[in-house]
Amino acid sequence: MGSRSEAGSAAGSVTQLADQLRSFAEEREWQQFHTPKNLAMALSGEVGELLAELQWLTPDQAAQVMADPQAGARVRAEIGDVMIYLVRLADVLDIDLVGAATDKLADSARRYPVEIARGSAAKAPRS
Amino acid sequence: MGSRSEAGSAAGSVTQLADQLRSFAEEREWQQFHTPKNLAMALSGEVGELLAELQWLTPDQAAQVMADPQAGARVRAEIGDVMIYLVRLADVLDIDLVGAATDKLADSARRYPVEIARGSAAKAPRS
Amino acid sequence: MGSRSEAGSAAGSVTQLADQLRSFAEEREWQQFHTPKNLAMALSGEVGELLAELQWLTPDQAAQVMADPQAGARVRAEIGDVMIYLVRLADVLDIDLVGAATDKLADSARRYPVEIARGSAAKAPRS
Amino acid sequence: MGSRSEAGSAAGSVTQLADQLRSFAEEREWQQFHTPKNLAMALSGEVGELLAELQWLTPDQAAQVMADPQAGARVRAEIGDVMIYLVRLADVLDIDLVGAATDKLADSARRYPVEIARGSAAKAPRS
Repeated sequence: MGSRSEAGSAAGSVTQLADQLRSFAEEREWQQFHTPKNLAMALSGEVGELLAELQWLTPDQAAQVMADPQAGARVRAEIGDVMIYLVRLADVLDIDLVGAATDKLADSARRYPVEIARGSAAKAPRS
Repeated sequence: MGSRSEAGSAAGSVTQLADQLRSFAEEREWQQFHTPKNLAMALSGEVGELLAELQWLTPDQAAQVMADPQAGARVRAEIGDVMIYLVRLADVLDIDLVGAATDKLADSARRYPVEIARGSAAKAPRS
Repeated sequence: MGSRSEAGSAAGSVTQLADQLRSFAEEREWQQFHTPKNLAMALSGEVGELLAELQWLTPDQAAQVMADPQAGARVRAEIGDVMIYLVRLADVLDIDLVGAATDKLADSARRYPVEIARGSAAKAPRS
Repeated sequence: MGSRSEAGSAAGSVTQLADQLRSFAEEREWQQFHTPKNLAMALSGEVGELLAELQWLTPDQAAQVMADPQAGARVRAEIGDVMIYLVRLADVLDIDLVGAATDKLADSARRYPVEIARGSAAKAPRS
C-alpha cells in the first residue's frame, strides 16, 4: 500500500504525467500521430496486452500474479502503458481525467444505493 | 487546459480516487467480483465503449468531438469509466499507477531518442 | 452441436456472409465509413460488449451462461456482432478469413508440439 | 477477391475450423484453459494486437496496408488469430457463429432501412 501513498505524495501527479507525455510527443513531432482515434486504438491495444498477461491464469493465480517477480513486472509495465495512453488521450481531448472518473463514481453511487446493491453481481456498475 | 490544472490542485488525486473506489466496493460487498481478471475484462469493455463513440467519425470530426455538448459528454463519461476500472485494477494489484506510467515513459525515452524518432510513425512507442 | 452442423451445411457460409455485409453497406452508402481503422475500432467495441456480458460471472456461471435464455441470447447477439465486423474487415482488406486462421493454426501446431505443450498453461498459444 | 472465393469453396469451413481447433486443444489438454472468460480475454487481446498494426497509419495508409508484404502479412496473421479465438469461443458456448451473425444482420436491416440510413454515419449499426 506504500506505493500508492508515494503516488499521492506528488501533488497533481496526473497533471505532471500529462505534461511529460505532451513534451515527449512534441519533442519527437508525434502530435501528428496522436489523434483521438489513434490514441484510442493504442489504448485498446495496450489493454489487450494487459489481458494477455492474465488470460490463462486461474482466478487464484491472477490474484497472486504480483508475487511472481517476472510476471508482476510485466503486468506493472502493461498497466503503465495503459495509463500512458489514457492520460495522453484525455490531454488531447482536454478532459480532466480524475474529474471525469469522480463524476462517474458519484453517478454510480446514485444508481447503486448500498442497501440495494450489496453483494449482488447483477448490480455491479455498468456504464 | 484549466480542467487539468484543477485535477492537479488536489494533491494525490489518483490515491484519493483509489480510496474512494475501494470504499465504494467494500460498502457494496463487491470485492468478491473485483478480481484482477474481472476488472481487466471490465476495463476492456469500457475501452470498447469509448472506441464506439469515435469509430465512425472522420479524423477531423474526432478532433472536434468535445465541441459537441452531447458527444463530448459521452466521451468524457466513457473516459471516466475507463479511469475508474484502471485505478481499481491497479489498487487491487497494489500497483502505483502513476509510477508505473512514469517508469514506462523513461523506458520509451531511452528507446526513442529525439534525434532518431523525430516525425517517424514507425518509431511511435510500442510496448 | 447441431447448430454448428447447420452452419457448415451452407457451402461457403463465410463468403456468403461477406457478400451480404458488402451489399448491406453498399445499399446504405456506408463504404465511406467502413475503412480498415474504423472497422477495427468497431470490432474492438463489440468485443468489449461481449466481455461485459461475462465479466462479473464466476468461471462456473460463465460456463453455464447459454443455459440462461436471456443472458444466452445476449451473448449470442454479441458474438454475432463481433463476427459481422471481423468478416467485414477481412473483406475490405481482401483477406481470406478462414485461410488466415488455418495458417495460424498450422503455425501453432509447429510451435506447440503435443508432447511438450500438454497440460501447460504457459504454452498456451500466443501470437 | 479470389481469396474469398477459395474460402467459400471448402463447404462448411467454419465448422471444419472449429473441429480442428477443438482437436488441437484436446490433444494438448488445453480445454481446462479454454473457459468462456479466458477465451473472451484472449479474443480481446488478439484484437488489441490487430489494432496495434493499424493505429499509427493514416486512413490512406491503412487502406493500402495489404500492399506492403511485411505489414500485410502481420495484419493477416492477427486477423487469423482473432478468428481462431472467436471460433473457439463460439464452439465452447455451442453458438453457431455464422447463424448468430446472420441473425444480427437481419436485425440491422430492420433497424436501418435503406431509405433512412443512406450515407448517414449516425445510423451506422450499433449493437
